[in-house]
Amino acid sequence: MAAGPIPLGMVGGGEGAFIGAVHRIAARIDGQFALVAGALSSDESRAQASAEKLGIARSYGDFRVMAQEEAAREDGIRAVSVVTPNHMHAPVSIAFLDAGINVICDKPLTATQEQAQELAEAVRRSKARFFLTHNYCAHPMIREARAMVAEGAIGDLRLVQAEYLQGWMSEEVKTKQASWRTDPAKSGAGAIGDIGTHAWQLAEFVTGQTPAEISAELSSIVVGRRVDDDVRVKLRYASGAKGGLWASQVALGQENGLSLRLFGSKGALAWRLQDAEALIFTGKDGQSQRLTRARDRSESYRTPPGHPEGYLEAFGNLYRDIAEVLRGDETHLDRIPGLSDGLSGMAFIAAAQESSAQDGAWVRIAT
Amino acid sequence: MAAGPIPLGMVGGGEGAFIGAVHRIAARIDGQFALVAGALSSDESRAQASAEKLGIARSYGDFRVMAQEEAAREDGIRAVSVVTPNHMHAPVSIAFLDAGINVICDKPLTATQEQAQELAEAVRRSKARFFLTHNYCAHPMIREARAMVAEGAIGDLRLVQAEYLQGWMSEEVKTKQASWRTDPAKSGAGAIGDIGTHAWQLAEFVTGQTPAEISAELSSIVVGRRVDDDVRVKLRYASGAKGGLWASQVALGQENGLSLRLFGSKGALAWRLQDAEALIFTGKDGQSQRLTRARDRSESYRTPPGHPEGYLEAFGNLYRDIAEVLRGDETHLDRIPGLSDGLSGMAFIAAAQESSAQDGAWVRIAT
Amino acid sequence: MAAGPIPLGMVGGGEGAFIGAVHRIAARIDGQFALVAGALSSDESRAQASAEKLGIARSYGDFRVMAQEEAAREDGIRAVSVVTPNHMHAPVSIAFLDAGINVICDKPLTATQEQAQELAEAVRRSKARFFLTHNYCAHPMIREARAMVAEGAIGDLRLVQAEYLQGWMSEEVKTKQASWRTDPAKSGAGAIGDIGTHAWQLAEFVTGQTPAEISAELSSIVVGRRVDDDVRVKLRYASGAKGGLWASQVALGQENGLSLRLFGSKGALAWRLQDAEALIFTGKDGQSQRLTRARDRSESYRTPPGHPEGYLEAFGNLYRDIAEVLRGDETHLDRIPGLSDGLSGMAFIAAAQESSAQDGAWVRIAT
Amino acid sequence: MAAGPIPLGMVGGGEGAFIGAVHRIAARIDGQFALVAGALSSDESRAQASAEKLGIARSYGDFRVMAQEEAAREDGIRAVSVVTPNHMHAPVSIAFLDAGINVICDKPLTATQEQAQELAEAVRRSKARFFLTHNYCAHPMIREARAMVAEGAIGDLRLVQAEYLQGWMSEEVKTKQASWRTDPAKSGAGAIGDIGTHAWQLAEFVTGQTPAEISAELSSIVVGRRVDDDVRVKLRYASGAKGGLWASQVALGQENGLSLRLFGSKGALAWRLQDAEALIFTGKDGQSQRLTRARDRSESYRTPPGHPEGYLEAFGNLYRDIAEVLRGDETHLDRIPGLSDGLSGMAFIAAAQESSAQDGAWVRIAT
Repeated sequence: MAAGPIPLGMVGGGEGAFIGAVHRIAARIDGQFALVAGALSSDESRAQASAEKLGIARSYGDFRVMAQEEAAREDGIRAVSVVTPNHMHAPVSIAFLDAGINVICDKPLTATQEQAQELAEAVRRSKARFFLTHNYCAHPMIREARAMVAEGAIGDLRLVQAEYLQGWMSEEVKTKQASWRTDPAKSGAGAIGDIGTHAWQLAEFVTGQTPAEISAELSSIVVGRRVDDDVRVKLRYASGAKGGLWASQVALGQENGLSLRLFGSKGALAWRLQDAEALIFTGKDGQSQRLTRARDRSESYRTPPGHPEGYLEAFGNLYRDIAEVLRGDETHLDRIPGLSDGLSGMAFIAAAQESSAQDGAWVRIAT
Repeated sequence: MAAGPIPLGMVGGGEGAFIGAVHRIAARIDGQFALVAGALSSDESRAQASAEKLGIARSYGDFRVMAQEEAAREDGIRAVSVVTPNHMHAPVSIAFLDAGINVICDKPLTATQEQAQELAEAVRRSKARFFLTHNYCAHPMIREARAMVAEGAIGDLRLVQAEYLQGWMSEEVKTKQASWRTDPAKSGAGAIGDIGTHAWQLAEFVTGQTPAEISAELSSIVVGRRVDDDVRVKLRYASGAKGGLWASQVALGQENGLSLRLFGSKGALAWRLQDAEALIFTGKDGQSQRLTRARDRSESYRTPPGHPEGYLEAFGNLYRDIAEVLRGDETHLDRIPGLSDGLSGMAFIAAAQESSAQDGAWVRIAT
Repeated sequence: MAAGPIPLGMVGGGEGAFIGAVHRIAARIDGQFALVAGALSSDESRAQASAEKLGIARSYGDFRVMAQEEAAREDGIRAVSVVTPNHMHAPVSIAFLDAGINVICDKPLTATQEQAQELAEAVRRSKARFFLTHNYCAHPMIREARAMVAEGAIGDLRLVQAEYLQGWMSEEVKTKQASWRTDPAKSGAGAIGDIGTHAWQLAEFVTGQTPAEISAELSSIVVGRRVDDDVRVKLRYASGAKGGLWASQVALGQENGLSLRLFGSKGALAWRLQDAEALIFTGKDGQSQRLTRARDRSESYRTPPGHPEGYLEAFGNLYRDIAEVLRGDETHLDRIPGLSDGLSGMAFIAAAQESSAQDGAWVRIAT
Repeated sequence: MAAGPIPLGMVGGGEGAFIGAVHRIAARIDGQFALVAGALSSDESRAQASAEKLGIARSYGDFRVMAQEEAAREDGIRAVSVVTPNHMHAPVSIAFLDAGINVICDKPLTATQEQAQELAEAVRRSKARFFLTHNYCAHPMIREARAMVAEGAIGDLRLVQAEYLQGWMSEEVKTKQASWRTDPAKSGAGAIGDIGTHAWQLAEFVTGQTPAEISAELSSIVVGRRVDDDVRVKLRYASGAKGGLWASQVALGQENGLSLRLFGSKGALAWRLQDAEALIFTGKDGQSQRLTRARDRSESYRTPPGHPEGYLEAFGNLYRDIAEVLRGDETHLDRIPGLSDGLSGMAFIAAAQESSAQDGAWVRIAT
C-alpha cells in the first residue's frame, strides 16, 4: 500500500453518539485512515466542542461547506464517514459524492424510497465511490461462509433463517439513541430498517441470492410506539428455496442476537454473532464441524487463532478493504457492501411495509 | 399407589417400529405397567411373532377382537397404547374407548378432521380416559417453564418462537418409518402433523395460550414428495402477542431440534431439547440464569441433579402420571395431554393447510 | 437371546437409597431382568417393607441366607445387584459368588485393600461372574472414543485430563447418602473412592493405559471432615504421556461434572457428562468435529439420533450387556467393567493415599 | 484527559513479529498514543524498513541510543513498548527507565532471575513507571470477577483451577515465533514462561492471593525440545485453599484456551477466553448466572452489550489505563499489572523449575 494514512472526514458522530465512535475505531484500528475533518453535529458549537475533544483538526458547522472546502484543499479528505440519523444519509452523501469525495455511509441507505433513488443517481453520476457499512458481512467466518456456499459446500440452497434480536426497546426508551430511531420522520422505519436490513443483507451476502417475494408482519409491540419493533417475514426465492427473517427490538434480554442458518441439499451452515469466530458446518452424516480461523481464507484477522476478535475488528475489516480500494487495489471490492446492497435493503423495507399493510400478502421484491 | 403394575395392551408397534418401542420403555421404566396383550401388527402372524419376541402373553390379530376380549377378562388390560400410523388412531382408540378401556394414543390425534370429530365423540361418551402422548411437554424443565409463566415470571407474553427441525427426510427416504409418513392417506399431513403439532402443543402448554389466527406456508422441498416437509407459520394471539412456528424435516443435519423461546414484558425463557435439563431465564437486566433441577418443582426426576435424563424419561413421566390417574389420584391430571390438545393440533393443521392454499392468508383457529 | 427376563436379586437399596433405585431402573429399562428377591436392608422389617413396596416376591433379612436359598431354588436368581455401602461390597459379593450366583456390584470395589484381595480370590475360585458398575464407561460416545483411540485416531497419547466435580458436600451434610460416605469405616475413602475411581476407570477404559505412577494431594476442605473431599493427582504413564485427575465434592455448584480430555500426536478427544451424546474430536488443523450418534458404532442407543439419552440409559447399557453375557453371548464382554477395573481403582486409592501422606511423592501403581 | 496522543516508542516488533503488531493496535485503538519512534529490530536496516512501512517517524538501530536521544528531545517519547524476546526485556527496560522514560513491557518479566532483580532495582530507582502487559487481566469480566471476589461473592476461596492450553507446538515448529521461544538462552523457560505466567497472574489478580507453595511437573513432550512444553502444578494457599495450574503448548487442536475456575464457600466463578464476555457465577443453589456487560462495573467497553469485544480490546484497555496514569489520573493504577506481577511470575517459574527438578517436591514461593 501507498504510504501514510488516508485523510478522512466525518459527518455526525458527535459526543454521545454510538455509531460515530465505532466508525472512528474501525478507521483507526489498522492505521489506514487519519480523521482530520468533521461536521460532527448540526449544532455548530457542539460540533466544534466534539471535534476538539477528539483532536480533529478541521471542524465545520455545515456539511455542504465541508464538502466544498475539503474538495478544494490539496490535503483535503479523500473519504467521509456519514454517521447521521437515517434521514440525513442521502443529503450528506450526495453533497460529498457531488464534490468528488468518497463516501462511507452507515446503514440503512436512506429514510425514504425517494431519497434512495436520489442517492442512487448521485452515486451513478459521481466519480467517487459509495460504501455502505453493513459491517456484519465483514466477519471473517461470514466471508468464509460465502465462499463455501459459492463453492457448493451446501449444495442447492433450500432453507434460510436470519434473525436479529435485541431487547433494549422492550419498554419506551428516552435516550438519544432511541429517540430518532422511533421517530418515523428521522428513521423512516423501526426495527426493520435499523436491524432488519442487516439480517437481510447478511443472508443476501452469504447466499448470493435475493428473495423474489416476501410476506411480512410488522408489529409495534410497545404501546404508543410509532414505528415497528417486531418484524416477521417469510421469504420465497426464485430457486424454490424458502426462508424466514425475524428482527425484533423487544426480545427482552437479547443483547444483539444476530444469526444466520442455511440448509442445502448437501450441507448446512450456521453462524451467530455471539460466537462470531466459529462457523458450524454440518454434512449429510449429521456430524457438525466447528470451523475456525484455520479455515478462514479471507485473511481478515490481525492475531493468531484463539485470540478473540469481534465487532470492532469486523467493522475495521470494512475500513481496511475500503482503504485498499482507495489506494487502487480492487482485489476485495466485491466483498464491500455498496449501493446495490443499500437499494436491496430499501426494496426489502418497501415490500415488507406493503405486505404488512395488506395483511401479509406476498409482495415481489423490486429489482 | 395401589400395589402391582397396571395391565397394559398395545396396538401397533411390531418389530422395526420406532414409537412402539419407546412406549414400551416409557411404560416399563418406573415399573407401573405390565404389557400383557397386543395387536402389534395388522398381519396376524407378524403380530404373533413380535408378541413372542417381546414376551407379551396375549397376541391378537384384530384390535377389535382384542378390545372385546380384554374388556371381558377379569384380568384384562386397563389401558391400551395406540402406536399405529396416524390413520388408524381413531378407529383403534374408539374401539377401546367403547369397550371401556383407557387409551394412551400417540400424536397427532388422527389423520383427518372427520376422524378427529368421531374420536372426540367417542371420548365424550366413554367412561374411559383418553391420553395423547405429546411427550415433550413432560420434560421437567418444560413443566417448570409452564409454572413460571403462570406465576408471571415473564410478565405479559409478547413473542413466541417454536421450532422443530429435523433433517432425515432431506432426500427421498424409503424406510418403513418414512413411507407411511409421506403417504397422505396414512399420515393426513407431512411435517406439520408429525412434528409441527409437537411444537404447537409445546407452545400452548407452556404459554397457556392458543393463537387466534395463523398465516402458513407449507412446502414440499424434496421434488415429488406428496406431503409438506417444511412448515413456516406466523402466529397472532388474541392478547396481541405475535409468534412464529417453524417445522421442517429437510433441515439437513438437524437430528431432532425442538426448541421454544418466549419473550414477555418482564422476562424471557428459552428451552431446547438438546439441552433439555436447562431452562434459560433472562430478566430485564439481560443477565441470564441457567435453571436446572434444583429449580424443578414437578418432581419429575429419578436421579439427583447432574445425572442426565432425557427423552425416554420424559416419555416415562407421562406414563407415570397416567398410572397415577388410573390408580385414582388426579393431582397431576392437568399436565397430561389429552383430547383438547389433540383437537387443538388438528385445528392447527386445518388452518395451516387452508392458509397455505390461500397463499398465506390469515385464518382463524377453530375453537 | 433366550426368552424371558433373567431373575435378579438385590442386596441393599432399601427405601431412600439412591443407587439401588438406579440399578432397578437400569435392570428394567430393556426388560432383560426381573427383580424377584432382595435383602434390601440389614434391618429385616425395613427390608420387608421395601420389598413389598417394590413388588419384590422374596424378601430376606440376611444376605447369606438369601445366597444359600436362592442358589438352592430351581427358579432362583441368576444374578444379584450389590448396592450396599462400600464396606459390605466384599462380604456380600463373596457370599453370592461362593453360592455360584453372578454378581453385579456397585463401585468402588471394596472399602479396604484387604477386602479387595479377598474378593479377588472369591472371583477367581467361583464359576460365577463378577461385574462392577462403572456406568460412565457405558455411555455410547465413550465406547466410540475408546474405539477411536484404539484405531489410532489421536495418534500417540500425550496428555490426559480427567475431572469429576461435585459440590453437594461443600458443607457438612447430614443425609443418609452423606453419612456413610464420610465415615471412613464404611466408605474406606472419601471423594477418591466415591467419584475419583470413576474418573480413573473412565480414563483407563478409553485410553487403554494405566498410569505407572502418581503424585497426589488429598484434602479435607470442610473442617472436621474425616475423609478427603478434594483430590488432585498428577499422572505419569510408562509411554511418557502425562496427566491429571481432579475429583472434588466441594466444587460448589457443580452438580455432577465428569469430563475427560485426551491429547495425542495426531488428534484430541473431549467428552463431558453434561453433553454426553457428543464427542468432540479435533485434528491437527484445529477444526473440531462434534461427533454424535451417526458415528456411534456400539449400537448402544434405543432411540433415533436427537432423542437425548443419558445416565439411566448408559447404566442400562451395562445391564443389557450383562444380560447378553448371562445368556451365553460374550461379544461385548470386554466392555463390561469387572474385577480388574476394581483392583485398578483400589490400587489408585492406595497409591494416592500413600503419596499424599508422603507430601506428594511419586508412588508406583501396583500391578 | 489532556489533549493529544502521548508520543510512544517501540523496541522490537519488526515485520513478522506477532506481539509488536498487537501492541501497536492496542496503543492505537483508543487514540491515546502516537507511535513516533522505534528500534524495531536489532538489524538496523530491517529496523529502518519496518519503521518506514509502519510510518514511524524516527527509527533507531540501537535501543540505548534511542533511549538517550528520545529522553533529550522536547517532543520525545513519554513511553516505550518493549516487545522483544524475553532475554532482552531487562536490558531494554532498564535503559529506558534510567533515561526517565516510562516502560510498557511484554511478559514474562525477564528470561532469568538475575535479570529480574536488576530490572526490579532499575524500577525502584527510576522516576518513570513500569507496566507489564499481562493483558488477560484487562478483560472487563475478569475485572468484574476480581471485584466480586473482593466483595465476598464466593465467600472463602477453596479451590482454584487455571488452565492455558495451546496446541501449536505439538510438533517441532521452525517459525520465528517458535525459534526464540524454544531456545532457553532467549526465552529462559518454555510454556511456563510464555503462557504459564499468564495463568498464574490471572489467578493471582482475581483471587488476590498468591500460592504459598507449589509442586510442579515440567515436561518436554516433543522429543528433542530444550524447554518445557507441558506444565502441571499443584498449588497450596496459606488460607488452606488448594489449586491446580495446567499450561501446555502441545494440547493439540487448542488454539488459545485460557480459563479460570474458582470455588468458594458461598459461590463459584468461571471464565474462559473463548467466551470472554461472560462470567459464570454459581451460587449455593447450583443455579448458574451468565453475567455479561450489564454487570460490568469497570467501564472497559467501547460498544453496547452484544457487540463482541475480545483480545485486542482487552489489550487496549491496558493501554488506555496506562494513558490515564501517564496523564496524571491514578484512579485505575491498581488494575494495571506491573513489577510485582512480574516478580511473582518469576518466583513461580523458579519454584516450578526447582520442584520439577526435585521430582515434584513442594517448594515455597519466594516473597
